[in-house]
Amino acid sequence: MSLPLALDAMGGDFAPSEIVAGARRAVDELGLEVILVGPPERIGDPQGLEVFACSEVIEMDDDPGASVRKKKDSSLVRAAELVRDGKASAMVSAGNTGATMASALLRMGRLPGVLRPCIATPLPNPGRAPTVLVDAGANAECSAEMLVQFALLASAFSTARFKIERPSVALLSIGEESTKGSPLVKQTHQLLAATPGINFVGNVEGRDLIPSPVDVIVTDGFTGNVALKTLEGSLKFIFKLIMDVIGTNDETRAAGDTLFPYLLPAAGELSPDNQGGAMLLGLNGICVISHGSSNATAIMNALRVGAEMSAAGVLDGQRVAIRPDQAGENPTTDS
Amino acid sequence: MSLPLALDAMGGDFAPSEIVAGARRAVDELGLEVILVGPPERIGDPQGLEVFACSEVIEMDDDPGASVRKKKDSSLVRAAELVRDGKASAMVSAGNTGATMASALLRMGRLPGVLRPCIATPLPNPGRAPTVLVDAGANAECSAEMLVQFALLASAFSTARFKIERPSVALLSIGEESTKGSPLVKQTHQLLAATPGINFVGNVEGRDLIPSPVDVIVTDGFTGNVALKTLEGSLKFIFKLIMDVIGTNDETRAAGDTLFPYLLPAAGELSPDNQGGAMLLGLNGICVISHGSSNATAIMNALRVGAEMSAAGVLDGQRVAIRPDQAGENPTTDS
Repeated sequence: MSLPLALDAMGGDFAPSEIVAGARRAVDELGLEVILVGPPERIGDPQGLEVFACSEVIEMDDDPGASVRKKKDSSLVRAAELVRDGKASAMVSAGNTGATMASALLRMGRLPGVLRPCIATPLPNPGRAPTVLVDAGANAECSAEMLVQFALLASAFSTARFKIERPSVALLSIGEESTKGSPLVKQTHQLLAATPGINFVGNVEGRDLIPSPVDVIVTDGFTGNVALKTLEGSLKFIFKLIMDVIGTNDETRAAGDTLFPYLLPAAGELSPDNQGGAMLLGLNGICVISHGSSNATAIMNALRVGAEMSAAGVLDGQRVAIRPDQAGENPTTDS
Repeated sequence: MSLPLALDAMGGDFAPSEIVAGARRAVDELGLEVILVGPPERIGDPQGLEVFACSEVIEMDDDPGASVRKKKDSSLVRAAELVRDGKASAMVSAGNTGATMASALLRMGRLPGVLRPCIATPLPNPGRAPTVLVDAGANAECSAEMLVQFALLASAFSTARFKIERPSVALLSIGEESTKGSPLVKQTHQLLAATPGINFVGNVEGRDLIPSPVDVIVTDGFTGNVALKTLEGSLKFIFKLIMDVIGTNDETRAAGDTLFPYLLPAAGELSPDNQGGAMLLGLNGICVISHGSSNATAIMNALRVGAEMSAAGVLDGQRVAIRPDQAGENPTTDS
């Protein structure tokens, strides 16, 4: 029996309307079962969907740690509890990322042996499976041991999500040579090369993020967040520039009309709305983080990913990756 | 009397032909005086330009430190010596970046009080002066004190190069709040805010690199290099994607022909060839680093920047920025 998905109805810039609309589409178009979590009076019309009522909301600018401790009846905390208590297969939120992480970590807990959870963000590769960037921002300060675990967890995620059997893993640095980079990177390079279960292929640079020659790119959460936002910002900048050029006059607008049918599929492939969100790895439960400006499409795709990851047994994959000796011995409470 | 520019004729993927061609254009089109530094038999036809003969070349894949110590008669080392000895106003190279830095550092030395030299790379802002990213890759490991000096040096550079009177300075982080980021970033945030002479406006994120709301963005050389290469890679990726779309069929090619006259100026503004290269700051001499794939246009622009920076007194600006109490007291040996 598959469990429903717990959706934070109050998370994101366009909550609750786009969030509820995305849930409705996930039910109608994908056949998923979704529970909206939030204060009924703030959700408004639930579009016929089940509501798990709570009384509080963690706002986008609330302090993550403090708000999770204080707002125990918030939509984020309750969604995490539904997963913890085996009442939902995964939680999805487009809200305060820090508070989403804190809720998931505090309520679900970590998988055995995991030092710290991390954020895995798929980067599009036109024509082939996305590359998983990890850590995309959960941990601003990392040890080499943490980065090795991120590589193991993200490899398991790449396998579950993109069916990559033995994902190639690279370390983000400032040169291909093992001697290049910060002390952390140099130490991590040695450890990654020496860790069984990681298909380590060496260093990559910032220019290798899109398109990427590897399946998983490992970095600390500070560098990963800067790189991800630089990538997103650059793509957005260029698309705006092109739209401005096309809007110059009637002639350029006509040329744009000719190109749009070819440009739009490419742009769609790159849009975060179609990536299905980032995933928290290392936790004893599935948590999908959709971007703050999620529309209904982004939410529907995030729900789809949550359901698929549950069905694919992504938690078991992560368990075995971190504790290969305990394969098959870990009873789970969350599926 | 203005001094000639010392150009490493052997540096870059297209050396010596494009390098010599760029020098020739700088002489013809800009009225600059250029000395080609390199082994005459490898330079070939010097196009009528003066050659400072040496016997060795540091190759793109040579180890920077070792090669500079060993190849004392290399074009890079000799170019740096011409600046040190007051025979050239600036050196320009598109060669091995690490070896260029090492040559410049070892031969020219640092300005008084400077902890470490850094790389300042201009990032284009359509419609307004570029933003200076510092450190773009010289120092993979930094202290907060180093980052504060980078901010001072880059502010002086922004003033000399882009005539920005009181450049706004931001710190690259993973959130706007002063509490966000790595321990290094949090400490640097406090120091920047407390340092007179820095117009510190707070943190920016990766998405603020292009276009950027500030004049100077400070970061460590690891993060800076990753961000810069991510930015370059993303722009290159999108331009290729658009060219592929335009090349689909006759109809799209015609649409492309309509748009090119409008797209090309924008693309030109973004091209590294037109940025004039990065500059090493903190040294007792001017060193412009052009990108490895420099063509004649890129070299001509790098020479132009070298000449302009010499005329603008960029070294005096840096001296005063680091040691404001010693303004006017520093005799210089290199201009």
